[in-house]
Amino acid sequence: MVTSTGTNPPTYTTLKGMGLVNTAFKAEDLLKLRNGNLGIGHTRYSTTGISELQNCQPFVVDTLHGKIAVAHNGELVNASALRKKVMRHGVGLSTSSDSELITQLLALTPPMEELDTPDWVARIKNLMTETPTSYSLLVMYKDVIYAVRDPYGNRPLSIGRLVPISKLHSSGAGEADTEGWVVSSESCSFQSIGAKYYREVQPGEIVQISKNGVKSLSVVPRPEGDPPAFCIFEYVYFARPDSIFEGQMVYTVRQRCGRQLAIESPTDADVVSTVPESATPAALGYAQESGLPYVEVLCKNRYVGRTFIQPNTRLRQLGVAKKFGALTDNFAGKRVVLIDDSIVRGNTISPIIKLLKEAGATEVHIRVASPPIRFPCYMGINIPTKEELIANKPEFEDIAGYIGATSVRYLSVEGLVSAVQGGIESHGKDERISTKTTRFGHCTACLTGKYPVELEW
Amino acid sequence: MVTSTGTNPPTYTTLKGMGLVNTAFKAEDLLKLRNGNLGIGHTRYSTTGISELQNCQPFVVDTLHGKIAVAHNGELVNASALRKKVMRHGVGLSTSSDSELITQLLALTPPMEELDTPDWVARIKNLMTETPTSYSLLVMYKDVIYAVRDPYGNRPLSIGRLVPISKLHSSGAGEADTEGWVVSSESCSFQSIGAKYYREVQPGEIVQISKNGVKSLSVVPRPEGDPPAFCIFEYVYFARPDSIFEGQMVYTVRQRCGRQLAIESPTDADVVSTVPESATPAALGYAQESGLPYVEVLCKNRYVGRTFIQPNTRLRQLGVAKKFGALTDNFAGKRVVLIDDSIVRGNTISPIIKLLKEAGATEVHIRVASPPIRFPCYMGINIPTKEELIANKPEFEDIAGYIGATSVRYLSVEGLVSAVQGGIESHGKDERISTKTTRFGHCTACLTGKYPVELEW
Amino acid sequence: MVTSTGTNPPTYTTLKGMGLVNTAFKAEDLLKLRNGNLGIGHTRYSTTGISELQNCQPFVVDTLHGKIAVAHNGELVNASALRKKVMRHGVGLSTSSDSELITQLLALTPPMEELDTPDWVARIKNLMTETPTSYSLLVMYKDVIYAVRDPYGNRPLSIGRLVPISKLHSSGAGEADTEGWVVSSESCSFQSIGAKYYREVQPGEIVQISKNGVKSLSVVPRPEGDPPAFCIFEYVYFARPDSIFEGQMVYTVRQRCGRQLAIESPTDADVVSTVPESATPAALGYAQESGLPYVEVLCKNRYVGRTFIQPNTRLRQLGVAKKFGALTDNFAGKRVVLIDDSIVRGNTISPIIKLLKEAGATEVHIRVASPPIRFPCYMGINIPTKEELIANKPEFEDIAGYIGATSVRYLSVEGLVSAVQGGIESHGKDERISTKTTRFGHCTACLTGKYPVELEW
Amino acid sequence: MVTSTGTNPPTYTTLKGMGLVNTAFKAEDLLKLRNGNLGIGHTRYSTTGISELQNCQPFVVDTLHGKIAVAHNGELVNASALRKKVMRHGVGLSTSSDSELITQLLALTPPMEELDTPDWVARIKNLMTETPTSYSLLVMYKDVIYAVRDPYGNRPLSIGRLVPISKLHSSGAGEADTEGWVVSSESCSFQSIGAKYYREVQPGEIVQISKNGVKSLSVVPRPEGDPPAFCIFEYVYFARPDSIFEGQMVYTVRQRCGRQLAIESPTDADVVSTVPESATPAALGYAQESGLPYVEVLCKNRYVGRTFIQPNTRLRQLGVAKKFGALTDNFAGKRVVLIDDSIVRGNTISPIIKLLKEAGATEVHIRVASPPIRFPCYMGINIPTKEELIANKPEFEDIAGYIGATSVRYLSVEGLVSAVQGGIESHGKDERISTKTTRFGHCTACLTGKYPVELEW
Repeated sequence: MVTSTGTNPPTYTTLKGMGLVNTAFKAEDLLKLRNGNLGIGHTRYSTTGISELQNCQPFVVDTLHGKIAVAHNGELVNASALRKKVMRHGVGLSTSSDSELITQLLALTPPMEELDTPDWVARIKNLMTETPTSYSLLVMYKDVIYAVRDPYGNRPLSIGRLVPISKLHSSGAGEADTEGWVVSSESCSFQSIGAKYYREVQPGEIVQISKNGVKSLSVVPRPEGDPPAFCIFEYVYFARPDSIFEGQMVYTVRQRCGRQLAIESPTDADVVSTVPESATPAALGYAQESGLPYVEVLCKNRYVGRTFIQPNTRLRQLGVAKKFGALTDNFAGKRVVLIDDSIVRGNTISPIIKLLKEAGATEVHIRVASPPIRFPCYMGINIPTKEELIANKPEFEDIAGYIGATSVRYLSVEGLVSAVQGGIESHGKDERISTKTTRFGHCTACLTGKYPVELEW
Repeated sequence: MVTSTGTNPPTYTTLKGMGLVNTAFKAEDLLKLRNGNLGIGHTRYSTTGISELQNCQPFVVDTLHGKIAVAHNGELVNASALRKKVMRHGVGLSTSSDSELITQLLALTPPMEELDTPDWVARIKNLMTETPTSYSLLVMYKDVIYAVRDPYGNRPLSIGRLVPISKLHSSGAGEADTEGWVVSSESCSFQSIGAKYYREVQPGEIVQISKNGVKSLSVVPRPEGDPPAFCIFEYVYFARPDSIFEGQMVYTVRQRCGRQLAIESPTDADVVSTVPESATPAALGYAQESGLPYVEVLCKNRYVGRTFIQPNTRLRQLGVAKKFGALTDNFAGKRVVLIDDSIVRGNTISPIIKLLKEAGATEVHIRVASPPIRFPCYMGINIPTKEELIANKPEFEDIAGYIGATSVRYLSVEGLVSAVQGGIESHGKDERISTKTTRFGHCTACLTGKYPVELEW
Repeated sequence: MVTSTGTNPPTYTTLKGMGLVNTAFKAEDLLKLRNGNLGIGHTRYSTTGISELQNCQPFVVDTLHGKIAVAHNGELVNASALRKKVMRHGVGLSTSSDSELITQLLALTPPMEELDTPDWVARIKNLMTETPTSYSLLVMYKDVIYAVRDPYGNRPLSIGRLVPISKLHSSGAGEADTEGWVVSSESCSFQSIGAKYYREVQPGEIVQISKNGVKSLSVVPRPEGDPPAFCIFEYVYFARPDSIFEGQMVYTVRQRCGRQLAIESPTDADVVSTVPESATPAALGYAQESGLPYVEVLCKNRYVGRTFIQPNTRLRQLGVAKKFGALTDNFAGKRVVLIDDSIVRGNTISPIIKLLKEAGATEVHIRVASPPIRFPCYMGINIPTKEELIANKPEFEDIAGYIGATSVRYLSVEGLVSAVQGGIESHGKDERISTKTTRFGHCTACLTGKYPVELEW
Repeated sequence: MVTSTGTNPPTYTTLKGMGLVNTAFKAEDLLKLRNGNLGIGHTRYSTTGISELQNCQPFVVDTLHGKIAVAHNGELVNASALRKKVMRHGVGLSTSSDSELITQLLALTPPMEELDTPDWVARIKNLMTETPTSYSLLVMYKDVIYAVRDPYGNRPLSIGRLVPISKLHSSGAGEADTEGWVVSSESCSFQSIGAKYYREVQPGEIVQISKNGVKSLSVVPRPEGDPPAFCIFEYVYFARPDSIFEGQMVYTVRQRCGRQLAIESPTDADVVSTVPESATPAALGYAQESGLPYVEVLCKNRYVGRTFIQPNTRLRQLGVAKKFGALTDNFAGKRVVLIDDSIVRGNTISPIIKLLKEAGATEVHIRVASPPIRFPCYMGINIPTKEELIANKPEFEDIAGYIGATSVRYLSVEGLVSAVQGGIESHGKDERISTKTTRFGHCTACLTGKYPVELEW
């Protein structure tokens, strides 16, 4: 996290740490950030770079005009060529992160003549012509933050409005009565800090946020004929269900995927259930469409954390059985349709099926609310290698046999796309879409191998 | 945790720590416990004693006959009188815990003449005549563990059988191929370590567990006419839903509570939902009985831990809004029946109702799947003071107004008891009840003020 | 550490931790101790008991008359018999520590009739008749602390007077202006907190410290004819050089040992030096007596801590060379007399000699300012097993050869005793000896095998 | 720390941490460094940059030719101008450290044409023409390390030879039997790892270290007429006493300073003593020259760490009294000459004088074995601001009165320089000076205000 006082010259306060935000920082350190009245932060799993503190964002560098701070989400498809370009200019790169690369590109461009008045918007546009995707960026300079989404809109970026707490609650205001703007990859985060969803940054758009409010500066176009390419897996898996993309709630899209799955792959069974918690909207959708009763078959063991110590082979072999308890009464002697949101490697669903069968399920039909992943992502999503993906293994031929299920069916790519895009269309007149999305498109590269831009190596 | 080698003389290995088991211990320390082939452990929130390491169980003391280790769950109703008795004998008590008290009572009794052959079973019986409730105990001496439940059966205690892993999985056995017995307050823990539910320890029963297996030694009776008094709140709130008590699964009891609630307090509304996750079985029961559709209205924010740092008033005021996201599409413009499992202080449900209303719910009817708590528990459950309980406050008169709900209804005590006991009767012939429970009864003291034994002070 | 409010009833605040006081406690925890205006604390290496938190002193128990807290330094020579006695009475002992044993003995005795008015002084006297040595005790009950030294005076115990800070410094007083009394094993600690040395607790003496000041209550006598037995190794090794015992400063005794050593074992050499820092007073004494010049030959490497990570064999083999740097110019080409305070196992002096010789010393004569240790201590000092002591090994025959020295000489037992006792006599009229020590004696058991009391097993 | 495998292409392993080396790293992390057979490391107090992990050295960047790693000691006198130069080229600087600046300068220069064969030696020479002082550098590229000292030789740099352990000890060799070269600011570190002092890198010299051994590549000259400017405070204060600079041991120089001080400022007193431990060589020198007896007056309290918790005003006011114990017998009733190595702010010596006087010293004469510091250092030494230096305060007029001493005298600048340079001359024929130092000179800027180069801002 970096905050700026927005004064001239500004003072920047930086705070970085590894781990969950809850535990990585001490309260006294967080308080130091209050020096500033604008700031950018970042949390993510590192993709290109190794997960170490030096790669932590935001990346801050001192330039001839003062410090800039950059946070980004995504992965540059032509990072390798851009690194060479920067190094050929004589710049040593101290990390493997795209953030440093972007920051040094902004420091380099455009020509160095015009030293006195840095035109950061021109430099950002220049950057956007050098790399088409995938990035959502926040660039902070003095008292301004630029929010930028790549021309393909591959990564999400939303703007929220901080409502004064006195309007939220009748209780007194005091220190807390902040008004302002916030920007986030996921709109769900707004509610947590008392902000309201305002709108999305559009593909290719550069939005300026300052004490004068939100202002759209420019939209950098895609090559003629190219549709947008918003990552469809944000809907399927990554986003929190209460986030809003393209005017629709993620939960509703997942529920629609479940309904579509019930249409494509109906099942002769007694009950429908979920692998908690992420598959629950799809499971409820499947239940509604199919008319089968929805029951819970698994309860989560809240105290099994990721750091569980496994002192012997016995516990290791028990594996997933430690994570879930079987709610036997709800399915013993019955045929179960179990909805999962995705099957990537195939090794977590298998012990769950075994658990259900041992506890009395007569049949376990797996219905997956997304298509099989078959291809790598070069735009920031950490997908296992092609060889690790179950859809590319010989076992996929008889996947039901491999994982021990009675039957297995996936949602079709067309079904997924229609579940996603059908919703956008029907929301066309929804007031929540503050900027009209006249045209849309989604990246399905990991499912189809069709990448939105030609890949350079 | 204490393990014994079971040899003569045995070697005991002890490991204690504060916090979650995951984080309190290092792997290397856990490995030391493997010196033993029998052992007892304990995790709990301290009730009488302050939560410090010295109060940690099991309590181990050296006696003239060697070491004994004691773990217990519960709270002695006559602890104060028993402490005086022990101290009058000249014993200094180093902690405020009932475990130490029980252990010193076992060391003291019976008469000191018979020094050479300690009769621990006689001492345990003697202890059981001195204190009627509430305790489930594990007493380890050399190569034997005694599992003991008080005559009223107030706290649960179940026995499980460790199945050799080679029978669980076709994979090889090796080190992990342990056979044996485990005892736990909650049967749900058995599955996590690959054990099968075997049976409950009966009220008043002393069960011996040794390398010769499980053997019932004795059943100490209650006073003539007194029914058992198993804590009904284990069903309502404490137990994990996949645990089994008295032959029935906790989840099913909760679902039955929801059905009963729908019969007692039907609602004219559009959807039924839950405060995730504990109220979900009751909510599904309510939906089934009422015929209203079940939807999710809240999603949990997984990363909000208990230690969240709150640097300013704004975040503190936002309170519960940080913990849940609103799934707006599922209830905007609708009348919601929201099921909660219990309302104790009344200050957590209130911001949830506000959240739903701000997000568009037209009505929010609260239905509580248990009766109001009005009285303190003296048997080990940490209940707020009488003054803190919402049911004892003037605001309870207009609780709907107080918490901002359209209406509020609680399950009746009779309804709760029938939901619990109806299930036991219908399971009478269930093979899972290995020892027939010919008669049963439940402690409802916190709801009715009727305590199972007269309280001494 | 335990503090008491001294009110009726008092509130006790306890704080325990492992490790150095600096790091074991948090400031906020230490502040809690300020609830009390009297308190006792303890830091030590555990001797009988394993070093775990439960064995931490002070030991606090609740008795029929309220809580008592006990801190002790020493080891009971008849601990084993006393443990049996206590356990025969039906008391389970939860630790292996002598502190718990002493506390339970105080709780047990004398006869339980007189329950209403506990006579702790009678109980302490009774304890002192049951066990002759070795202990210095602090017993806190309500608003009184009893400071007790065993009849043989084996362990030290001194009283200091807290001077108001306004008398120490002309600066303002405020909160810090405390007056009062402190008790400590080592008088050197008084200066650190602004207290002045007052006097020693005499062998067998019970001193009461309360808001009414310091009062000598009683002196429990030794058996007729037995002299005191103050541990002579406190002078040789354990105590800080600025501590005062029996009216004389430890540093001066060590310097006198060095002089005596020069008289007993003169050396034909060029320079005298020290193994820093503990042997420096003896080395300076040796130099003064012998007339040889004193130089430094080794400097300490301040950053080599006990936790140094040793990633490979090379560093392990270098061993002590990491701890010291050779000050070559001061001894290259010269014959060195190197004074050490004691040689216990013989494996630390050896690499130092090698280091000096490699750096150019032509001869290295080792002179040890104490006699060889040959016997175990049963009174609280952690001495290696008899087999580990170099003085009991065959190598001792040619110890110079074994450790690589040109020659090795030890101080004689008589020389040590005269260096110690000569000083006490010459200080006879020193005003610092507030209570006249008319008769004295020292325990030399580890050197001579003559124990002050007959040992029971 | 960074290690390289020295293969083509090499693999670099990096390890960074804050705090003492002992505690900053885990053994498992250190073991990873063993991937390499050459490496560079760094420990220091940050001077220009704030002390945070990102500023940690060595600085590693990826260039068009692969990675280079740079560690440096010192501070560039023209850093500000060089930063502007680098940023004008379009490079963003991510830290405030000179290490990053040096690394980016190496990456930039010389002209980018000759991309295929990077001539690092030419680039280093170019760097040395751009900045005259102050730096000692280690530059690692693939399988070579360049050791570089600035033309003025302001910071030290020594080469040591790793002797095979089998030659050090007769014990077996195995894994530990490494042969090789080590480079360090202080030669004292060689002994700790079993290396022997080989020689110093000369002012302006570039030395190449590789598997082919040590090779002097070039000596970049100073401007005509400029003498070298080795920091004289390395002798006075910074270096460990067993380090060797310019052929002489630091301890011996300090002892000579003490002798010179006795000549310049004799004292009518009874004993000479030291503020342990750094002033001890000077105190022994003073005692030898003056004929006064040397005694110890203070002993260090080993357990007072820097992190000591100070819960109340009392302990804060006691201040330095906690760090030292008074060895009263050695000076009570006597006139003391107390030698200190330097007095910078004047606030640590004052409580020591008070301590000695309270304990009975009749007079306390302070003799300082170095001249007063009056000017800031721009070459890497962290000196308090001009205003904080006691020598620039009005109180310096009557410094004896200000600090409570009977009298205060400092060593003269001429006396210091003669103590330092006299030793080098007399060692002229010493075999330890492997490379003849035909001419020498020292930086005394902090004492005289005469800087070795004109300062640019």
